[in-house]
Amino acid sequence: MQFRQSERRIDGLTVDQLTSYRAWLQYREKDQEKYTKTVAPYLKAVSVTVDNDIIERALDEWTVGLNEMFKQRPAVVRETISEGLAITLDPSLPNESYQLKTTEKRIQLTAKDANGVLYGVFHLLRLLQMEESLQHLSMTEVPKNPVRMINQWDDMNGEVERGYAGESFFYKDYQFIKDRQRIYDYARLLAAAGINAISINNVNVHENETDLIFDRYLMDVKQTSDIFNQFGITLFLSINYAAPMEKGIASADPLDKDVQAFWKARAQAIYQVIPNFGGFLVKADSENRPGPFTYGRNHAEGANMLAEALEPYGGLVIWRCFVYNCKQDWRDRQTDRARAAYDHFMPLDGAFKENVVLQIKNGPMDFQVREPVSPLIGSLENTNHFLEFQIAQEYLGQQKHLVYLVPQWKEVLSFDTYSKGMGTYVKDIVAGEVFKNGHAGIVAVSNVGSDYNWTGHLFAQLNLYGYGRMIWNPELTAEAIALEWVKQTFGNDPFVIKTIMQMVMPSWEIYENYTSPLGIGWMVNISHHYGPNIDGYEYDKWGTYHFADRNGVGVDRTIETGTGFTGQFHKENARVYNDLTRCPDELLLFFHHVPYTHQLHSGKTVIQHIYDTHFRGVEQVKAMIDAWQSLKEAIDPTRYTSVMERLEHQLYMAKEWRDTVNTYFYRKSGINDLHGRTIY
Amino acid sequence: MQFRQSERRIDGLTVDQLTSYRAWLQYREKDQEKYTKTVAPYLKAVSVTVDNDIIERALDEWTVGLNEMFKQRPAVVRETISEGLAITLDPSLPNESYQLKTTEKRIQLTAKDANGVLYGVFHLLRLLQMEESLQHLSMTEVPKNPVRMINQWDDMNGEVERGYAGESFFYKDYQFIKDRQRIYDYARLLAAAGINAISINNVNVHENETDLIFDRYLMDVKQTSDIFNQFGITLFLSINYAAPMEKGIASADPLDKDVQAFWKARAQAIYQVIPNFGGFLVKADSENRPGPFTYGRNHAEGANMLAEALEPYGGLVIWRCFVYNCKQDWRDRQTDRARAAYDHFMPLDGAFKENVVLQIKNGPMDFQVREPVSPLIGSLENTNHFLEFQIAQEYLGQQKHLVYLVPQWKEVLSFDTYSKGMGTYVKDIVAGEVFKNGHAGIVAVSNVGSDYNWTGHLFAQLNLYGYGRMIWNPELTAEAIALEWVKQTFGNDPFVIKTIMQMVMPSWEIYENYTSPLGIGWMVNISHHYGPNIDGYEYDKWGTYHFADRNGVGVDRTIETGTGFTGQFHKENARVYNDLTRCPDELLLFFHHVPYTHQLHSGKTVIQHIYDTHFRGVEQVKAMIDAWQSLKEAIDPTRYTSVMERLEHQLYMAKEWRDTVNTYFYRKSGINDLHGRTIY
Repeated sequence: MQFRQSERRIDGLTVDQLTSYRAWLQYREKDQEKYTKTVAPYLKAVSVTVDNDIIERALDEWTVGLNEMFKQRPAVVRETISEGLAITLDPSLPNESYQLKTTEKRIQLTAKDANGVLYGVFHLLRLLQMEESLQHLSMTEVPKNPVRMINQWDDMNGEVERGYAGESFFYKDYQFIKDRQRIYDYARLLAAAGINAISINNVNVHENETDLIFDRYLMDVKQTSDIFNQFGITLFLSINYAAPMEKGIASADPLDKDVQAFWKARAQAIYQVIPNFGGFLVKADSENRPGPFTYGRNHAEGANMLAEALEPYGGLVIWRCFVYNCKQDWRDRQTDRARAAYDHFMPLDGAFKENVVLQIKNGPMDFQVREPVSPLIGSLENTNHFLEFQIAQEYLGQQKHLVYLVPQWKEVLSFDTYSKGMGTYVKDIVAGEVFKNGHAGIVAVSNVGSDYNWTGHLFAQLNLYGYGRMIWNPELTAEAIALEWVKQTFGNDPFVIKTIMQMVMPSWEIYENYTSPLGIGWMVNISHHYGPNIDGYEYDKWGTYHFADRNGVGVDRTIETGTGFTGQFHKENARVYNDLTRCPDELLLFFHHVPYTHQLHSGKTVIQHIYDTHFRGVEQVKAMIDAWQSLKEAIDPTRYTSVMERLEHQLYMAKEWRDTVNTYFYRKSGINDLHGRTIY
Repeated sequence: MQFRQSERRIDGLTVDQLTSYRAWLQYREKDQEKYTKTVAPYLKAVSVTVDNDIIERALDEWTVGLNEMFKQRPAVVRETISEGLAITLDPSLPNESYQLKTTEKRIQLTAKDANGVLYGVFHLLRLLQMEESLQHLSMTEVPKNPVRMINQWDDMNGEVERGYAGESFFYKDYQFIKDRQRIYDYARLLAAAGINAISINNVNVHENETDLIFDRYLMDVKQTSDIFNQFGITLFLSINYAAPMEKGIASADPLDKDVQAFWKARAQAIYQVIPNFGGFLVKADSENRPGPFTYGRNHAEGANMLAEALEPYGGLVIWRCFVYNCKQDWRDRQTDRARAAYDHFMPLDGAFKENVVLQIKNGPMDFQVREPVSPLIGSLENTNHFLEFQIAQEYLGQQKHLVYLVPQWKEVLSFDTYSKGMGTYVKDIVAGEVFKNGHAGIVAVSNVGSDYNWTGHLFAQLNLYGYGRMIWNPELTAEAIALEWVKQTFGNDPFVIKTIMQMVMPSWEIYENYTSPLGIGWMVNISHHYGPNIDGYEYDKWGTYHFADRNGVGVDRTIETGTGFTGQFHKENARVYNDLTRCPDELLLFFHHVPYTHQLHSGKTVIQHIYDTHFRGVEQVKAMIDAWQSLKEAIDPTRYTSVMERLEHQLYMAKEWRDTVNTYFYRKSGINDLHGRTIY
């Protein structure tokens, strides 16, 4: 299959829309003669002594990028050069790493492997896009996380579960989409952000998707894998734990010989077609999905059986820990969904095979605007695990609201678990450094679809880009990452940069202000999860309650009087969370049930905090709109208008949130706003 | 097309399921020799002097019915007979009416017309099924309502909007279903219950359904019409007000000449194919459907334009009054959805053409468990109108809960509007008697689908049967109607009859007890409307609020301090509803916002009433289950089990309702149950 290396033309997109489509690989033509002069010698030639698909893509990217930015195509040569970019490999470096060193006329890119070359080239292109100096470069880049993965939640009917950017560009009507240019372009974007693994179908595996590991679709999977592989990305599939039963075997019991034979035969068949297949992603015994519980087996027995099948080929079983009772009785205040992952998986620590990796959501609930870190992280010592984020903004505005997620994720990564004493940070644990895991890394649910700009909200591109950059190097600040994205996406006008940064940086806090207060979470409409509905899940079976009554609100998760969830943390954190006087304000209602008149560390009462943040959040959205408006002349109309429409909708929804939350708590508490603002 | 007259075999149904399918036309074989003896002479022959399709169906029904019950086929003759059933017509009688007179060996059925013959025969068959004496009959039956109509809400994709009994048996995948046996059987059942009109597609007319009035589907419509016509039922279609725009005309403005010409051409085309076509049912400017408002025209202009097109052929335009602002701001407590129909249509009273009929829902909101009667009824003096009920139990348990609706409907029909002084009952107004309307009658949304028993819950058959019987003769008591149905459906065992009557008669009150209290309504989950969600619609745009806060609950619709809705009633009713001390308990919260400690006429406080009725409702469902259990040996296993499963689900849901409602109001009010029962 032939792909166009550069997206100067995409079927169905206008030229204007293409600007959005190009995302962070704009390669805008440089008109700064001064800058062009300083980099001119580096652009003359590129020398490389090895060759493979990935390096070929790197060279393509380099020549196309330079041609678009500087109208200059470097000569590709195999001999040593004195001017230009010289690429060599050094097997002694860490995996996927690279070094960049420049002299006056020459860039030396030394990489461990082909992936390193690709990342090094994208690094240089990033610097060129941002018009940064290439002189005196001397750096080594080593990715912090060995696995840097994306999970697609695409269904083969063409829908994307929790997808807010149009239909799938992988599937339609239970077929792979024939034109794979878009997958190719996606792979480029991901590689430019440092991603090296992807699962291409929803973790909820339905009837047709079960067949992805069978002849019916396997050649399509292989062709898709080939595309991703060219960009150093390994392909995984989500599987249906009950697949054997769809194929005539009487059970899916992991201890059943027929079941074991089934999976071994499947693994063999897959690896015959796709030798570098990554492995299986599994959602089992979770939200009504089948799993080993049906047969009285535990998760280790379930996962290890699959792992045995994949072991000969080096494949992984990624097993999600999102296991909880989704048929809880709301009347039962002792059962606590927050406890579930830890309660299920801690007793099995050490029982999993070496090629099993548990996948743990960042918080104990489900990607809320504010949660504590999952206590499984820092507790599992003898089991490989990945951390899971959600780039798709399921509970964070569904890509209709501008919310920059990296600040939230950075808080998770910087959280001190105290697992091996002070300074045992999440970022080091999930990178595999603390417990010396054989497999480690970070995974996130994708936010793309077939919308012309990939992500619905143009600014949601930042979350995809930022995710990749952050997990490559968690030491990068959220500001630094955003700045990279803004410059690559919108160019280097200082006013544009400053204004957009003012919109982006506080956006998570703003969203938190006008939605669900003090860590309580939820309060959304059922099932689609958009918009305020304070009691939406309050009398439902999902384990997501706030227990607001006329006196107070919050979930008592303390050891003494509550569900005991705080006890799942190491004692340093447990003490803080358990103690009403020490618990951080932003998580207060996650851990404690308090009267509306309870005084926060901030000095405000809970009820006044609710009122204040909700009024403030709406004002902050207005300020965002003012900021964007000031850029009207500086941004192309397509991008300007599409963002403005979403901002206006965000303001409308922020008011809905503000008034619904305030009215709800006013009706319950009867306590007036100190400042006499309108509450309905 | 040939149809089987009796449903001894239906594709896809087991013999056991057929019993449910036969509904109230069981024609169970009689084993009571004594009874058979008393009716024997009447069964010998049937004489009829006229012939047409409908009378042929009546004769078929008579011969098949007798054969199944008594193993005896009467001879059909044209000459006078001394023993048997003699059928003659008498044009001097009122439309559709019939007289039954028996001598010792002969029944004289004298009817106005073919419909009268059909209804008379079904009357006799009903008496035979119930084993009632045919001797000394001497009666005249005249239907109270000229139009007795059913609205199907079937979509051509095969779904039924608010359908709780499986897919449509009219359509599938945008085609008419080829095998129309089921439509034939439905027509029989409807005719046996006295129905004489039907609209066969959903009032929400989507893209494909727009084509029902075009060549694409017109022959299918004609064939469907032919089936219904054989049973005296006239066929109507729901139309898309914007149909002209789907066919290339620039607008749907009723004053546009092209639009008028479009509809005239359509009417001509339809009547050429279906000369006795009934007319159009229209949902316009309602819940986002197109309508004349788009063009600055009012409903009269919109309806009259269509009426002019149908006028030459005697067709009707049935125009729904379900018009309200479905994008209301919940913060605005002055806008009142209850006022909407009256506010929209009263100013147009007298402006509609003679062949326009307004269709008015029984209450001002939307088929809730308890509402006042729509004040339009008794106010519109110069406009034809139909009353609309909903047999489908959208807000009344969705055919998973056993709820007998006739007692609710009877309250509506017996309501005294005081329109022309005391004693101006709804039943007389909608029958056209009070204001001498040219067209009058009652309409209801159907509750059938392709489930083997038609209605999902077997007992929901009673609502379809009861609807027909009640609107034929509103003087029949709810008990009398239920008794007819029970005997025809389950036979004449006195214990069975008594037990089922005990389940059926209080079932509406039971449902009200455990769901939404004191006339407030709603409190259901959004969009699908099933199960409790007290705040489900509270902060939404649909105009359906309860305004519960820590002090009290209810909607102030009084003239002085509220929305003024009470003022839409004639003064005798307005005074009662407007006055907190006189307003009936069961509608208190519909009309007033009161503290939880407000004392009802019953002597209880509002909050204690809520607790008491909710605890009681669950106990009543348990009693229903006990009653049904006592019939285990007396009912065939298919019907027994299917009803029992639903009763058990009803109990589960009744508990959900009880605990959710009680907990919600306890959390808000903080007032303890006087009897210390468990509130969560």
